[in-house]
Amino acid sequence: MSGQSNSVQFEEMAWPEIKNRIGSSAVFVPAGSIEQHGPHLPVSTDLVIAEELSIEVARHTDGLVAPPLNYGYRSQPQSGGGQSFTGTINLRGETYQNLAKDVLSELVADGAEHIVIIPGHGENEFFLREAVDLHLDEGGEGTFMIANWWDLLSEPTLESIYQDIPGGFPGWNAEHAGIIETSLMQHFSPEMVDNGEIIDDEAPRAPPYVLKPTPSDFIADSGTYYKATFATPEIGRRVSEDVVDQLTDAVRTEFDVNF
Amino acid sequence: MSGQSNSVQFEEMAWPEIKNRIGSSAVFVPAGSIEQHGPHLPVSTDLVIAEELSIEVARHTDGLVAPPLNYGYRSQPQSGGGQSFTGTINLRGETYQNLAKDVLSELVADGAEHIVIIPGHGENEFFLREAVDLHLDEGGEGTFMIANWWDLLSEPTLESIYQDIPGGFPGWNAEHAGIIETSLMQHFSPEMVDNGEIIDDEAPRAPPYVLKPTPSDFIADSGTYYKATFATPEIGRRVSEDVVDQLTDAVRTEFDVNF
Amino acid sequence: MSGQSNSVQFEEMAWPEIKNRIGSSAVFVPAGSIEQHGPHLPVSTDLVIAEELSIEVARHTDGLVAPPLNYGYRSQPQSGGGQSFTGTINLRGETYQNLAKDVLSELVADGAEHIVIIPGHGENEFFLREAVDLHLDEGGEGTFMIANWWDLLSEPTLESIYQDIPGGFPGWNAEHAGIIETSLMQHFSPEMVDNGEIIDDEAPRAPPYVLKPTPSDFIADSGTYYKATFATPEIGRRVSEDVVDQLTDAVRTEFDVNF
Amino acid sequence: MSGQSNSVQFEEMAWPEIKNRIGSSAVFVPAGSIEQHGPHLPVSTDLVIAEELSIEVARHTDGLVAPPLNYGYRSQPQSGGGQSFTGTINLRGETYQNLAKDVLSELVADGAEHIVIIPGHGENEFFLREAVDLHLDEGGEGTFMIANWWDLLSEPTLESIYQDIPGGFPGWNAEHAGIIETSLMQHFSPEMVDNGEIIDDEAPRAPPYVLKPTPSDFIADSGTYYKATFATPEIGRRVSEDVVDQLTDAVRTEFDVNF
Amino acid sequence: MSGQSNSVQFEEMAWPEIKNRIGSSAVFVPAGSIEQHGPHLPVSTDLVIAEELSIEVARHTDGLVAPPLNYGYRSQPQSGGGQSFTGTINLRGETYQNLAKDVLSELVADGAEHIVIIPGHGENEFFLREAVDLHLDEGGEGTFMIANWWDLLSEPTLESIYQDIPGGFPGWNAEHAGIIETSLMQHFSPEMVDNGEIIDDEAPRAPPYVLKPTPSDFIADSGTYYKATFATPEIGRRVSEDVVDQLTDAVRTEFDVNF
Amino acid sequence: MSGQSNSVQFEEMAWPEIKNRIGSSAVFVPAGSIEQHGPHLPVSTDLVIAEELSIEVARHTDGLVAPPLNYGYRSQPQSGGGQSFTGTINLRGETYQNLAKDVLSELVADGAEHIVIIPGHGENEFFLREAVDLHLDEGGEGTFMIANWWDLLSEPTLESIYQDIPGGFPGWNAEHAGIIETSLMQHFSPEMVDNGEIIDDEAPRAPPYVLKPTPSDFIADSGTYYKATFATPEIGRRVSEDVVDQLTDAVRTEFDVNF
Repeated sequence: MSGQSNSVQFEEMAWPEIKNRIGSSAVFVPAGSIEQHGPHLPVSTDLVIAEELSIEVARHTDGLVAPPLNYGYRSQPQSGGGQSFTGTINLRGETYQNLAKDVLSELVADGAEHIVIIPGHGENEFFLREAVDLHLDEGGEGTFMIANWWDLLSEPTLESIYQDIPGGFPGWNAEHAGIIETSLMQHFSPEMVDNGEIIDDEAPRAPPYVLKPTPSDFIADSGTYYKATFATPEIGRRVSEDVVDQLTDAVRTEFDVNF
Repeated sequence: MSGQSNSVQFEEMAWPEIKNRIGSSAVFVPAGSIEQHGPHLPVSTDLVIAEELSIEVARHTDGLVAPPLNYGYRSQPQSGGGQSFTGTINLRGETYQNLAKDVLSELVADGAEHIVIIPGHGENEFFLREAVDLHLDEGGEGTFMIANWWDLLSEPTLESIYQDIPGGFPGWNAEHAGIIETSLMQHFSPEMVDNGEIIDDEAPRAPPYVLKPTPSDFIADSGTYYKATFATPEIGRRVSEDVVDQLTDAVRTEFDVNF
Repeated sequence: MSGQSNSVQFEEMAWPEIKNRIGSSAVFVPAGSIEQHGPHLPVSTDLVIAEELSIEVARHTDGLVAPPLNYGYRSQPQSGGGQSFTGTINLRGETYQNLAKDVLSELVADGAEHIVIIPGHGENEFFLREAVDLHLDEGGEGTFMIANWWDLLSEPTLESIYQDIPGGFPGWNAEHAGIIETSLMQHFSPEMVDNGEIIDDEAPRAPPYVLKPTPSDFIADSGTYYKATFATPEIGRRVSEDVVDQLTDAVRTEFDVNF
Repeated sequence: MSGQSNSVQFEEMAWPEIKNRIGSSAVFVPAGSIEQHGPHLPVSTDLVIAEELSIEVARHTDGLVAPPLNYGYRSQPQSGGGQSFTGTINLRGETYQNLAKDVLSELVADGAEHIVIIPGHGENEFFLREAVDLHLDEGGEGTFMIANWWDLLSEPTLESIYQDIPGGFPGWNAEHAGIIETSLMQHFSPEMVDNGEIIDDEAPRAPPYVLKPTPSDFIADSGTYYKATFATPEIGRRVSEDVVDQLTDAVRTEFDVNF
Repeated sequence: MSGQSNSVQFEEMAWPEIKNRIGSSAVFVPAGSIEQHGPHLPVSTDLVIAEELSIEVARHTDGLVAPPLNYGYRSQPQSGGGQSFTGTINLRGETYQNLAKDVLSELVADGAEHIVIIPGHGENEFFLREAVDLHLDEGGEGTFMIANWWDLLSEPTLESIYQDIPGGFPGWNAEHAGIIETSLMQHFSPEMVDNGEIIDDEAPRAPPYVLKPTPSDFIADSGTYYKATFATPEIGRRVSEDVVDQLTDAVRTEFDVNF
Repeated sequence: MSGQSNSVQFEEMAWPEIKNRIGSSAVFVPAGSIEQHGPHLPVSTDLVIAEELSIEVARHTDGLVAPPLNYGYRSQPQSGGGQSFTGTINLRGETYQNLAKDVLSELVADGAEHIVIIPGHGENEFFLREAVDLHLDEGGEGTFMIANWWDLLSEPTLESIYQDIPGGFPGWNAEHAGIIETSLMQHFSPEMVDNGEIIDDEAPRAPPYVLKPTPSDFIADSGTYYKATFATPEIGRRVSEDVVDQLTDAVRTEFDVNF
């Protein structure tokens, strides 16, 4: 199986190779979404970022990357546009948590002991927590980390990125298709970024509560919620490296795996 | 959005492009699996085949390819090995049909009128039918084709492939990781095929009924259920071309789309 | 309880008799449907056939027949007419698999170790597999055979029946209310067959894919999908005997029961 | 279709006959159970009684009888023995209400407007109510009567039966496999009653609350909860006639059907 | 924690106090409803009665009272008015049983061994039984009593209340917002009773079957189903004392707790 | 109904009063939890705070307060202690969202047009969003605000509270049973606060990811996650007034109700 030996991706491996590696490795599960990300980024933005970070950290930790949860939990209008935009494909909560639970339980049945779920979409988090709890409720084994990359990003890196940007860091809800996501895509998949379409935009109103059905002035018309024009591939590289470092440390600290 | 203009894949598009194209195009949904396919093929074999055929027929019909249902319904031991093999990740029936239903309903909400589901995994079929029926039960719109590629393959092509193989065509249940799947993978993704691991194998017993828990002699030890050594990239090419022709005709016959 | 001693049917027994017999016997579960079968056969055709075969094989194997799953999974339009016909009563997938699972789990709780499910309706199969898997997922005991009678019918018998029929064997999908089902009903329950209504019919189109909503020309107007006029009670008797022989052998081979 | 013309049972009819009759008839749905009924009655007692009463009242009202819900909601230990007895097959609440709901919705889709559900098992009632409500919640049409035969039985008939029995009427919970159920079975299906096994029995304790897990002294050892030895076929005939009269009146009063 | 020492209510305690007491105490779970109770009683009537009785019996048995299931299963039109009245909030069956099951399972996980569920609403009962069975099906521990207060009320007390009332006891279905519920509320929460609105009323028709959708003449216009004008606080006191005595005895008889 | 005229609580009203008021009022739904809150606060802390704020804002806006969702979604160990503490009662995600959905749908069926859900427990939020979406998916009417009180609290008030506290504001996750929740309880329900048990505590580790099963050093031993000793009733009053002002403004801005 020499042809597959440099890969970290489950999808490219035959069963004997997975069998050899799964017990002693951390297994990373990218949890993306299919959600509008402005006119300049593909609807798979959250998926691409979660997969690329997973692959990178798997390389650092001698881990495996499971096939992604490519679709995500419902996009929320006030942070991601929701169903106002064509191209967003929402899973309901029950669907999403059962999907995640089945995949996690099967990984454990296959011998995985240390599983790291990497959401690329904020809305996924609570339903992923529920999926893990459902697995554990049934007496399931394994240890599960859920690590939002934006929560892992170190404070100094975040500050250094935003220090020269007028208005500063607007909070992660407004970072949708903004500086950091655009930068990460320019770093990981520049061919999928349409630089000519990058604009600065925001929702006319952003109150501290949720309203459903959501008024149109709570949503950015373009689907871009902040100043994407400040994005650069270099910012993307820095964010990626910082997050991968933090994740590598987290795996080393919490799990009994060798790398 | 010129950078995305040659693609047929939803995942690579920003929302405005999807909005422009979705109403007038057939939308193809690959329905793969993560399932052992012998020591020579990756666990994503069903997924790769479904995606590649979807992309090809989308190119012929000016269609779109939605992000795949990458995980599939439970692998059945007597045709695919089931949970005896590490690397197979099974979704339960309810999970799978809800996943498919949510995705199909959302595509329709986004304007899709003509949807073609392309399973790469036989076990998916009845739960995909159920997903469509659940959508229609709720008053959902759209027209849905479910087209197993193996059912589309023309009789003459199948016969020409098997005419020189001792034993002849063993039925599709035994074609798991066999001649045709191996040939398709050699055609589509030769870098994922480990030619040195190709063998001929079969289950010691293959009775005309299902037994669960499944005795080990109903399962091929290697995970290969037939004579994979007869596979060639050329057979893969012929199968692909034939299936794509049949699918293109089916789309033209059944749907009101222009291409 | 001498009055009940010649019966094999659970429904006719009091609890002490079931208690005495259930542990050492194979238990047969007929899985029928309520589905149109043309103007000449009752909507219980699949149910009657599954029950009659179950009773016959139970007599050969000293087994028990549980009360049937009388309603079945959704009739598919291209093979059975679906909801186009009054009198078809469809269960949804989740309903059907939970019903089957509860019944199977309770039989096991009552001491059954060897359970044979006999579908009379092709659409039931995958949801019965799921039901068994759900039972086993929960740590449930028992061994389960799912035996479609049409898959058990021996090749020589099938060939001998069709050898003189113009067009030959059309595949099981087209056998709906056709020669073999009509013959079996003439054999088992002639009083329920309206011989004056028997006709030959077929769907105008029978393409190798599923389309939903289903165009009317994929469906036979009468509900009869093939040449029912060739049916005879004698064919019914031969099919029944052949299937019962095969099932008896299967029980002897796979299960540790004495008869 | 002359051969079927005297029947009232759906199961014996072909689709055209059902189509002709379903819109203008009341449709009766027997809702039985598979539950121990002492050593003298079959486990199908509730089913047989519900079916026989349905057939009889259908004859009086020119109605149709749908295939029964043969399995029932969980037998309760304090009134029916529960899972302490081999031969009782319990459906869970969700399974049972979904089964009933699917059947009712399909009958309505087939044109039924007036549906009478006849439970033979007290435990079914609230889950049948829920099934009807679920159907109506979805905007479903039709009018539904749920008529427990024991609630329909007139006070004078009940009193005349019990006037000479020491201890008098013990309440319906204790009537399990008692005088009235035994009498009804002697009337409807004497070949299924093992008269030599009839005894008088009762649970040692019958407190006015439910306890789960249920202590064994809340359950009658034999499964007979009262004085079955007082049963006669004549009592069965009188109960049946009385209930059928009441049901016929109820149909005439509440539904707009002609007979 | 001296400040909390006289309470029996979980809601008023901090976790260490609950930890100290839960293992050795009976835990009472009031199961109320939010349902119209005529123009003179609040929609929380069933909840208030269930809570007050729980608190009283907990004081007698050194028990704990868990936070109530405040919402209840669907009000039935023929006994409680159903959705004809503003202010009734119905839970569906599946919702209600899952809610109860989660709460019961968590109490057991917290160490409760003896749990008494006190419904204040007749419709709750079967779904509470199902909840307990679901818990036990999963191997859950604990012993559960379900005690409807109206079933506990002793025959002499009931008779003494109704002896002077013209028409006598009409059955519990008609007692909705009637003499006994009104009296209990006058006893427990006189400030929530609007004595000026008390009337005698009834449904024009009360047949011995259920009809859905329910005709308006099966429902009392006022929401009061019987002769509430006969209510007095003194009757409320006697009912409460009698029920609390019976419940205290039941706890002493069935559970191994000291008080 | 003069006796009820000063109340804003649904629970204290008879149906005619609710009918008169529900269409023109905002309806507030407190969404609490039963969760440990250190040794000094009751397990109903989240519930009490949500209810008290709801009542206060209802008084300001001439609104109604529905009976609370008293139990909440699963307590998360890293922010609330989870199942490590006796007295925490967790609902699963599906249970919680169905409960909320049924209640919201019924309020709308009763005529409510403007509904404000006030969570007292952070974990509830995403499952409340899902509940609203499920209601809207079915074509349900009404407008729904979900307003976490901690998100409404104005920045100046938060800063003024924390300006003198060493370490400053630790983020809302660490505010569990901390300064603000303790202060609110001292303001609303001083009799339920055990001042002698107030301590400062924290989890030994608080990493920016979730780990399940959760290591014990991610959890504060006492259940108090921050410096509760700084709490005062005066802080509670200021927080309450500020939040009520913000909520009143939000209702005025978003809803078409008069007050």
